[in-house]
Amino acid sequence: MSPSPLTPRIGAWFIGARGSVATTATVGTLALRAGLGTPDGCVSELPEVAAAGLPALTGIITGGHEVGEGSLPKRAEELAAGGVFPTALARALCAELAEADDRIRPGAGPGGETQRAAADRIQEDLRAFRDRHGLDEVVVVDVSSTEPPAPDTPELHSLDLLEAALDRGESPLPTSSLYAYAAFRAGCPVVAFTPSPGPKLPALGELALREGLPWAGSDGKTGETLLKSALAPMFAHRALAVRSWASVNLLGGGDGRTLADPEAAQSKLRTKGQGLEAILGHPVDGPMHIDYVADLGDWKTAWDHVSFEGFLGTRMSLQFTWNGCDSALAAPLVLDLVRLAARAREAGEAGPLPALGFFFKDPAGTAEHDLGRQWQALTDWCTALGARA
Amino acid sequence: MSPSPLTPRIGAWFIGARGSVATTATVGTLALRAGLGTPDGCVSELPEVAAAGLPALTGIITGGHEVGEGSLPKRAEELAAGGVFPTALARALCAELAEADDRIRPGAGPGGETQRAAADRIQEDLRAFRDRHGLDEVVVVDVSSTEPPAPDTPELHSLDLLEAALDRGESPLPTSSLYAYAAFRAGCPVVAFTPSPGPKLPALGELALREGLPWAGSDGKTGETLLKSALAPMFAHRALAVRSWASVNLLGGGDGRTLADPEAAQSKLRTKGQGLEAILGHPVDGPMHIDYVADLGDWKTAWDHVSFEGFLGTRMSLQFTWNGCDSALAAPLVLDLVRLAARAREAGEAGPLPALGFFFKDPAGTAEHDLGRQWQALTDWCTALGARA
Amino acid sequence: MSPSPLTPRIGAWFIGARGSVATTATVGTLALRAGLGTPDGCVSELPEVAAAGLPALTGIITGGHEVGEGSLPKRAEELAAGGVFPTALARALCAELAEADDRIRPGAGPGGETQRAAADRIQEDLRAFRDRHGLDEVVVVDVSSTEPPAPDTPELHSLDLLEAALDRGESPLPTSSLYAYAAFRAGCPVVAFTPSPGPKLPALGELALREGLPWAGSDGKTGETLLKSALAPMFAHRALAVRSWASVNLLGGGDGRTLADPEAAQSKLRTKGQGLEAILGHPVDGPMHIDYVADLGDWKTAWDHVSFEGFLGTRMSLQFTWNGCDSALAAPLVLDLVRLAARAREAGEAGPLPALGFFFKDPAGTAEHDLGRQWQALTDWCTALGARA
Amino acid sequence: MSPSPLTPRIGAWFIGARGSVATTATVGTLALRAGLGTPDGCVSELPEVAAAGLPALTGIITGGHEVGEGSLPKRAEELAAGGVFPTALARALCAELAEADDRIRPGAGPGGETQRAAADRIQEDLRAFRDRHGLDEVVVVDVSSTEPPAPDTPELHSLDLLEAALDRGESPLPTSSLYAYAAFRAGCPVVAFTPSPGPKLPALGELALREGLPWAGSDGKTGETLLKSALAPMFAHRALAVRSWASVNLLGGGDGRTLADPEAAQSKLRTKGQGLEAILGHPVDGPMHIDYVADLGDWKTAWDHVSFEGFLGTRMSLQFTWNGCDSALAAPLVLDLVRLAARAREAGEAGPLPALGFFFKDPAGTAEHDLGRQWQALTDWCTALGARA
Repeated sequence: MSPSPLTPRIGAWFIGARGSVATTATVGTLALRAGLGTPDGCVSELPEVAAAGLPALTGIITGGHEVGEGSLPKRAEELAAGGVFPTALARALCAELAEADDRIRPGAGPGGETQRAAADRIQEDLRAFRDRHGLDEVVVVDVSSTEPPAPDTPELHSLDLLEAALDRGESPLPTSSLYAYAAFRAGCPVVAFTPSPGPKLPALGELALREGLPWAGSDGKTGETLLKSALAPMFAHRALAVRSWASVNLLGGGDGRTLADPEAAQSKLRTKGQGLEAILGHPVDGPMHIDYVADLGDWKTAWDHVSFEGFLGTRMSLQFTWNGCDSALAAPLVLDLVRLAARAREAGEAGPLPALGFFFKDPAGTAEHDLGRQWQALTDWCTALGARA
Repeated sequence: MSPSPLTPRIGAWFIGARGSVATTATVGTLALRAGLGTPDGCVSELPEVAAAGLPALTGIITGGHEVGEGSLPKRAEELAAGGVFPTALARALCAELAEADDRIRPGAGPGGETQRAAADRIQEDLRAFRDRHGLDEVVVVDVSSTEPPAPDTPELHSLDLLEAALDRGESPLPTSSLYAYAAFRAGCPVVAFTPSPGPKLPALGELALREGLPWAGSDGKTGETLLKSALAPMFAHRALAVRSWASVNLLGGGDGRTLADPEAAQSKLRTKGQGLEAILGHPVDGPMHIDYVADLGDWKTAWDHVSFEGFLGTRMSLQFTWNGCDSALAAPLVLDLVRLAARAREAGEAGPLPALGFFFKDPAGTAEHDLGRQWQALTDWCTALGARA
Repeated sequence: MSPSPLTPRIGAWFIGARGSVATTATVGTLALRAGLGTPDGCVSELPEVAAAGLPALTGIITGGHEVGEGSLPKRAEELAAGGVFPTALARALCAELAEADDRIRPGAGPGGETQRAAADRIQEDLRAFRDRHGLDEVVVVDVSSTEPPAPDTPELHSLDLLEAALDRGESPLPTSSLYAYAAFRAGCPVVAFTPSPGPKLPALGELALREGLPWAGSDGKTGETLLKSALAPMFAHRALAVRSWASVNLLGGGDGRTLADPEAAQSKLRTKGQGLEAILGHPVDGPMHIDYVADLGDWKTAWDHVSFEGFLGTRMSLQFTWNGCDSALAAPLVLDLVRLAARAREAGEAGPLPALGFFFKDPAGTAEHDLGRQWQALTDWCTALGARA
Repeated sequence: MSPSPLTPRIGAWFIGARGSVATTATVGTLALRAGLGTPDGCVSELPEVAAAGLPALTGIITGGHEVGEGSLPKRAEELAAGGVFPTALARALCAELAEADDRIRPGAGPGGETQRAAADRIQEDLRAFRDRHGLDEVVVVDVSSTEPPAPDTPELHSLDLLEAALDRGESPLPTSSLYAYAAFRAGCPVVAFTPSPGPKLPALGELALREGLPWAGSDGKTGETLLKSALAPMFAHRALAVRSWASVNLLGGGDGRTLADPEAAQSKLRTKGQGLEAILGHPVDGPMHIDYVADLGDWKTAWDHVSFEGFLGTRMSLQFTWNGCDSALAAPLVLDLVRLAARAREAGEAGPLPALGFFFKDPAGTAEHDLGRQWQALTDWCTALGARA
């Protein structure tokens, strides 16, 4: 798996480049390149997906934008102490992480520059990254904190109106969409790994199509929702009537803190809820909680209780407890998506990529939530891409 | 759904006709015919399966063989007291259950008559049932107690040797296979809902083909194994390395008592274990227990603990607890299988029916254990059958 | 256990007399008197508690106030259908339940009469019940829906101010406290089985002492809080540092519906939270949810997740799932409290009864929450009472 | 808590000195002495226990016997990698661990020397340890692998017969009892932290009394059994009838491997089972499994399912999952027992110490299993000891 000089080199540009997911993904690329650790959790290493003819996992170089302080080596130490990966790994890669940290540029936030100026600056950062490292493709991945749902305005529905507003010095875009706007203008595919609006606004959909760029999203399906999308089809196909499905998520870390804000949690709860109804074909009763429990650190414990009815009205139940490390689950998927989005771009695909619905809670371009069917769609697409190569 | 005079009438002939599953299935047919209760848990009522053009659910009449004492009305009372279905239902159907009980004939066991004589008697019972009720088809379903694995002998591998042994007055067949032999001779499709040998012996495979009869099996997938076949593909397709999978089944009732016998449990454990390895592609560590806990009655509680490894070796876990009523889960599947086997026979299919793997822990004629793919195979087959009708 | 002519006869007067708990308790007294069923869950039948010299369980006759419609036979049918007790029991006791229903009087609510008039009416009902049945003692038990926390006013802190306000035609009391006021005026001990204010107001504390009447409360400890009070001492005595304790309660039925109102839930959450801190000696992080899930009916499923730290900072966890029927858990405790309060009255005790803290989430007259110590206090008190008899 | 020159110095002598528990306890003493980490999980630091006037935790020095290879620094690295304590701690204490490793002497096993010779050698090791470090007291703690139940012979019941057999060159003692014999002869209190026979043989009971030495045991109560002893009294005191209690223990590590041997597991299962029956007052149905699952390393996951019956026969359930690190749970208890046994010896107590039943699955000298009562007995004893000091 060592990259030859001919290996296409791909850039992964993270919005939120020192967050837990980006840091873990960065550690991962460096570890794999150094031959430390195996790519468990990387879907793109499975033969059915690799069949697409993907750029090498070890050929990915990382960079990104970040509004926060700190450094990758320090963040890696902290994550290792929290059990996300071995401490020995963080130490062994300290120098490479410091180097990766130098590729991180100041992010955009509210205040100061206009969104037009910020977009120009972001585009410049993306082009400089591509040029400096001679990259075939740079994929922009949003792994920053979840934003609250955006207020709806006409500018978000029309590229012309949007451009005019930006030209007038206005700031109509949610931050995640500002990045997506700049990415598309810089010729980069976009991956929306959070529920934030990002590339999902109609105006940006127009832009992606005009620029001939693919994008994927949204909201990585890593834990409880993943399980729901594996289990709900079982109830549906066995004609068992689900009467209630209660979900509780206890999580610490930065993600937990963000979601402790009820407004931000709204975005998350909305994407988490929709799959179940889509699969079962009817609304389902039951609470869904996301709770911040500081001492859980980077780990998440989810408990679900499903009450269902079988033959002649007999009431039964299923409970599950998921104890997962969100960053360790998300990071390999992020790398998968970088490879797949780069390949889609190479193959000339533009607009939302429905075949990547497998990865997301709120799949763009498709209403399919059944994990098995999503897998089928993904691998069919990969096979087709491979045939085209 | 009321049966018209033209509705094809199908017989469901149960081996173990006063057992929990057969009693619940019988109550179900009577309840549905009387318009009491809805067919939750009946897969064959889903449009994708009904597309095959199935005989009506309300057109099924039951009968069977039984070695034990008791009566259906009494057994129904007991099951209702145990929460399998409402007491009111058992009472409302008391007369119909007594009538159904009259269609039950004495079963075959060790001792007494030769297997040739027993087979002749069973065939006679089946033909009489068909004739008396003017049935288009009689499907024989084994829902009796699980047998220990059968010792292997040459007679079980060759129909000629088998017939010769029977003619010599020998008794080479396990009881479940004796029923399957007689069923095939009487022109009846067979469903093996337990892990017992039944129609799976090579000699009987020959017989089914010679008679042009379909059969399906084996060992109904109703609880923990069902969940495994829904969840294991999730781990596989997400490239998460399953390191151990521990399974504990606490069950009361007659099934629990039978499986408290380590020899009988062997058959069950063998069929339960194989799916996981097939889906994951490697053997998986971890104990599998089946424990008899008398006070649980007709209910089963299963607890599974899965330990898996993600990116960079991070260890995570999933646990689930399933609290189900085995009879209530099995009974509608039994009715589904009767309808599907009757339709397969009508359509001229013979031998094992791999498309019915969806229903079984140890699917005959296929190595597919992934529940999503099994559903795909089932519905593809039903669509094709429907087109032929 | 058959009541002799000499058995002291005790009245249990329920506020909320057709609610789930009161109906179950009423069914229980009738069932035990008829020799149907055993008194499982009745603490007062254990020798250490019976040592107090208690009035016979079969000597309890029930009555009460109720604002709602319906009838006891009908409510018993509904509860039986929901699995609270066998349907056969509800049917066998139909006539006795109708008789018990005749002993229920219209309750007091907001509007209409003044609180003074309502109190007089309630007192009259209590006296009439006692006289008509020749009862030695009538214990008033609040098992009605939980009220929101009461606004604090001077009248609630002084009996003189309270009497003056009532005389002026004002209505200063929460409804639960109106009943307690009337009960004390009628010479009846009071049991506050809900978190509502009831007898806990200082003004009523004065009244109880002036009348020489004992009272017990508050908020019956039947499920998750019971478990907490059994488990938290384990962590404390083993010097294991509890870092978070998350609690989720899914409940249907009338209780769930009431607590779906956030204001009413406030009262409940307050009493549920305090014990943990008292036992562990420090505040504990973690959410506490009470969710209404209609399809669960009279049953409750609680899930708790405890994260704790051991030697050298090692982080470990405990989870539990409790699947209980609240009415079946509460009803025998209500009967226990009637017997114990009647005995306390006979023995001349007045004011809050701290020895009954064992039964409550928010024990009156004591700060002890450790279940083991509460048991010790209860049995010591019973032994002492027994010695006095 | 820093040891003054006057601090009494106590020796903790471990049988199985490089096992997981002994290594963790050794790391603990060194960490606390170095001011790294806090003594969470040390019961003897709670004021109610410290009241006994105990030797300082930081005044404990460790040594021991070991039949295996390896070294403490290496073992500590392995345990840290398995999450038992932080890697940083193992590294910081590397030199001190090497020093502690030098205090470990070759253990006794089957073959080679006679038991008389082995006992003499062990006694010599113990005296040398005490003299070299000027210790006030040396407590011998068995934390080695569990032995199968010992065959019963007359020599184990009489000290005279035992001495005679040893003098004849026979080897009548189980290895754990050989150590206890030698310890008593060397004037050392003994703590039996495993279910092995150790000091529990009647002949050794005689010896302990003759030498005026206290001993404590047996089988440390660290996980599932601890929970049982906290929860079972709740059921008993609430008059809830436990109908079945199923227990499953998944464990990796050395302990798991040992207990994968059915003979060794026998000892464990015997001590685990008895508490429940003692607390509930009747035998309880339900399986108890101990399963070796290699990938769990030093961690244990236990699942228990309790089915119980309440008022009028209503069936309910409680499940719990315990995820604990056995070594981290056991090590502080071992240090507690060393301090308490040393104090008991100082106070002149001899024979089994029933007040220490709080720590054990199979408490010596008492039949009390209720955790709350055991805590009461422990703290009463500590108060009395403190008054004597």
